[in-house]
Amino acid sequence: MKSFKFYLSCLFSVLFIFSVRAQTTDSTHYRFLRQIYDYALTQADCYENLRHICKEIGPRLSGSPQASQAIDYTTQLMQGYAFDTVFRQKVEVPHWVRGEKEIAYAQTASGKKELPVCALGGSIATPKNGLEASLIMVHDFEELEKLGKKQIKGKIVFFNRPMPPTCIHTFDAYGKTVDQRFAGAAEAAKYGAAGVVVRSMGLRNDDFPHTGSMKYYGDGKKIPAVAISVNGADYLKEQIESGNDVNFFFKTHCQTLPDALSHNVIGELYGSDQKDAFIIAGGHLDSWDMGEGAHDDGAGTVQAIEALRILKNLGYPPKHNIRAVLFMNEENGMRGAKKYAELLKENNEKHIAAIESDRGGFTPRGFSFEGVDENSALIAFLKREFAPFNMLQWDAGHSGPDIRQLNKHETMLFGYIPDSQRYFDVHHADSDVFEAVHKRELELGAAALAALIYLIDQNLYHKK
Amino acid sequence: MKSFKFYLSCLFSVLFIFSVRAQTTDSTHYRFLRQIYDYALTQADCYENLRHICKEIGPRLSGSPQASQAIDYTTQLMQGYAFDTVFRQKVEVPHWVRGEKEIAYAQTASGKKELPVCALGGSIATPKNGLEASLIMVHDFEELEKLGKKQIKGKIVFFNRPMPPTCIHTFDAYGKTVDQRFAGAAEAAKYGAAGVVVRSMGLRNDDFPHTGSMKYYGDGKKIPAVAISVNGADYLKEQIESGNDVNFFFKTHCQTLPDALSHNVIGELYGSDQKDAFIIAGGHLDSWDMGEGAHDDGAGTVQAIEALRILKNLGYPPKHNIRAVLFMNEENGMRGAKKYAELLKENNEKHIAAIESDRGGFTPRGFSFEGVDENSALIAFLKREFAPFNMLQWDAGHSGPDIRQLNKHETMLFGYIPDSQRYFDVHHADSDVFEAVHKRELELGAAALAALIYLIDQNLYHKK
Repeated sequence: MKSFKFYLSCLFSVLFIFSVRAQTTDSTHYRFLRQIYDYALTQADCYENLRHICKEIGPRLSGSPQASQAIDYTTQLMQGYAFDTVFRQKVEVPHWVRGEKEIAYAQTASGKKELPVCALGGSIATPKNGLEASLIMVHDFEELEKLGKKQIKGKIVFFNRPMPPTCIHTFDAYGKTVDQRFAGAAEAAKYGAAGVVVRSMGLRNDDFPHTGSMKYYGDGKKIPAVAISVNGADYLKEQIESGNDVNFFFKTHCQTLPDALSHNVIGELYGSDQKDAFIIAGGHLDSWDMGEGAHDDGAGTVQAIEALRILKNLGYPPKHNIRAVLFMNEENGMRGAKKYAELLKENNEKHIAAIESDRGGFTPRGFSFEGVDENSALIAFLKREFAPFNMLQWDAGHSGPDIRQLNKHETMLFGYIPDSQRYFDVHHADSDVFEAVHKRELELGAAALAALIYLIDQNLYHKK
Repeated sequence: MKSFKFYLSCLFSVLFIFSVRAQTTDSTHYRFLRQIYDYALTQADCYENLRHICKEIGPRLSGSPQASQAIDYTTQLMQGYAFDTVFRQKVEVPHWVRGEKEIAYAQTASGKKELPVCALGGSIATPKNGLEASLIMVHDFEELEKLGKKQIKGKIVFFNRPMPPTCIHTFDAYGKTVDQRFAGAAEAAKYGAAGVVVRSMGLRNDDFPHTGSMKYYGDGKKIPAVAISVNGADYLKEQIESGNDVNFFFKTHCQTLPDALSHNVIGELYGSDQKDAFIIAGGHLDSWDMGEGAHDDGAGTVQAIEALRILKNLGYPPKHNIRAVLFMNEENGMRGAKKYAELLKENNEKHIAAIESDRGGFTPRGFSFEGVDENSALIAFLKREFAPFNMLQWDAGHSGPDIRQLNKHETMLFGYIPDSQRYFDVHHADSDVFEAVHKRELELGAAALAALIYLIDQNLYHKK
């Protein structure tokens, strides 16, 4: 007996120590946050709602039938949850369609090799029979300028600057390379390029091409542009660096149709006291047309809805009006967010805080913020209250693309920060599927949004 | 042009803001930590080394041929890295073998259903033709005592207390339920049970049974014990709660062989100044015999080796002797760690700090610590230097099972904390495979170990 009990006590001393964490938080807030987290981790619908969005609807590019289905589904979902009101805001959105699956190959001395590509969002199509030309590799716009018209004219330009793997936060790496995708075609066209291939914005060696938005110059020539998978880009680089002439062929069928009618979808819980003031939490309902838009931004969508559902089902009476805002068209135009910002001015709705979840449904790390001082009492309060829930990262800086359409001098902006290591494995690619989302991680994010809404609602009310 | 530049500047303002983070760290240390992280994220071998351990060797239970292969492989690996010395410590380890794959089924009014089970580590086998008996469900040892001999005798006891999903840190949930696995058979045997089925320690609804260590009382009866998958446990619960009599059958072939000779493997970089003092980083080389032992603890093994490799390849001359210690037999006996602790006393090796990575290879969050004051200058220094690398969680508490065999009053103990949400999806189960480990997350962990070794080496040296 003794030997067993000895073992057991060792085991327990090892394991239970995790539970003994200092709490220096306000006990009322702590108790309610604990209720929020308990509810999220045991009774949340968000994971099953995400499954529906991913598996029953699928990717939801602005203007697509799936985007309309997602509008209907989330409207009915929030009505079913008996939020105080659920309504839509009309918005005209760009309507770009990919058409048939793209094909591409490289032709070198060592033969012909098919390569995985996808058209960039907003690109024109190649000629009907495809485009074939000599490939020239560059890494940035300076290099392009140095090469000049003489060397670029008639060629396909291959932008191959990889996301720097040394960034701890992968969004930093994205920020340092996405210019190639966004403006590569427009820049290359200035020098007479026939088309553009861009290395996918990804940090993993795999075969998924990643799409994403691009823009032509208003007065510039339009040339077709595709993204190539990281492995595909490495193959091209190897061929070029070993001195092989590479002829590149690609065929795309994308086109831009006339703008389409679409909607933001909004669910609201009425405030008990501050009837003219709003706290909103949002994600974007549209996605790219690849994968299932699971992390980007099905996760943010279902988390925002869940945050309101949690507060409602826990019987919390908010002081301010609370909204879940599902923005349309974040990916290729931001029209929904612009419309939302326009209407709140028209309607004179005071927005005291806006929260966005658009960095994936991964494990929670913290929040970023704008329009609120890093050394303010509010931030100190939030840090303290969130500490027991392991939300330790509080970064002054970028909140989220949709809520940034609001004025940060009038509205405090908060961006939900999940862990970023796996995000660019799935971003805008066929790998962004429901299976890549972890149930608990998603639920913890929904809890974090609900908790932040609650804490701001309480803090700003009592401060008055 | 204007419209494009406007877009681009919006995009950039959105993205680059991530890069602007305040640095209040010592610039010398920051620069070297940056070198460590850069190296880890671009030139680390740890991911490929883990692939070898998982795919070429496989699971490595103490006493198994695979454990011996892992000893040889890691010895040669560290010799290949030209560490100053690589050596082994002999240790006798328990030698339990699973034998043929287990089978189990439940027989109820609604028919016979096969269920996924696995023997718990250390269990005796069932009789040759299996064990069949009436199933009785309990949730803890109190309930068992209340039921007493009369109701338990001759039955198979089904321990079905789930890991509480509401714990933010999943190890807390593990600590609150693992007594069923560890002592369930011993406790049930006191009341004459014929066998035991334990709900797997997992937080996901899936079909993987999770093994793990168990103990019989020295003077108690030994009865066979298996773990059943979470879905399987839910099936049994459903049957029982709907009033069905459940007959449970299982057949296992496991046995305990005589102790086997095995080894700890140690790689060392000599210190330039403090030749009598050591800083060690370790993981355990053994694993359970299911899956590939990828997260538990292939990850810790390759990270510890990588940490030394990084410091060596960056040309860092350590003041203290630095060791990567690969402990044998953490899973079912801790014999390697005990032997290590014994030998360091015999050899009069002063260990100033020990670091362990044994909570999976997931994205880094921080370190726990014992034997060093929470409010000490050292902890403040570490928090500050690690902040730019997003290591924000510093918990006074449990470090790691192997290094806990050292005396925390003589040695500061640090436990590497990766995110815990996904850990119990794979822990001790067939799902713990190489594919479940993310390359960057693993590399960031190796960098964290190297950085902590460096900072302790520097700090304690300069403090003298």
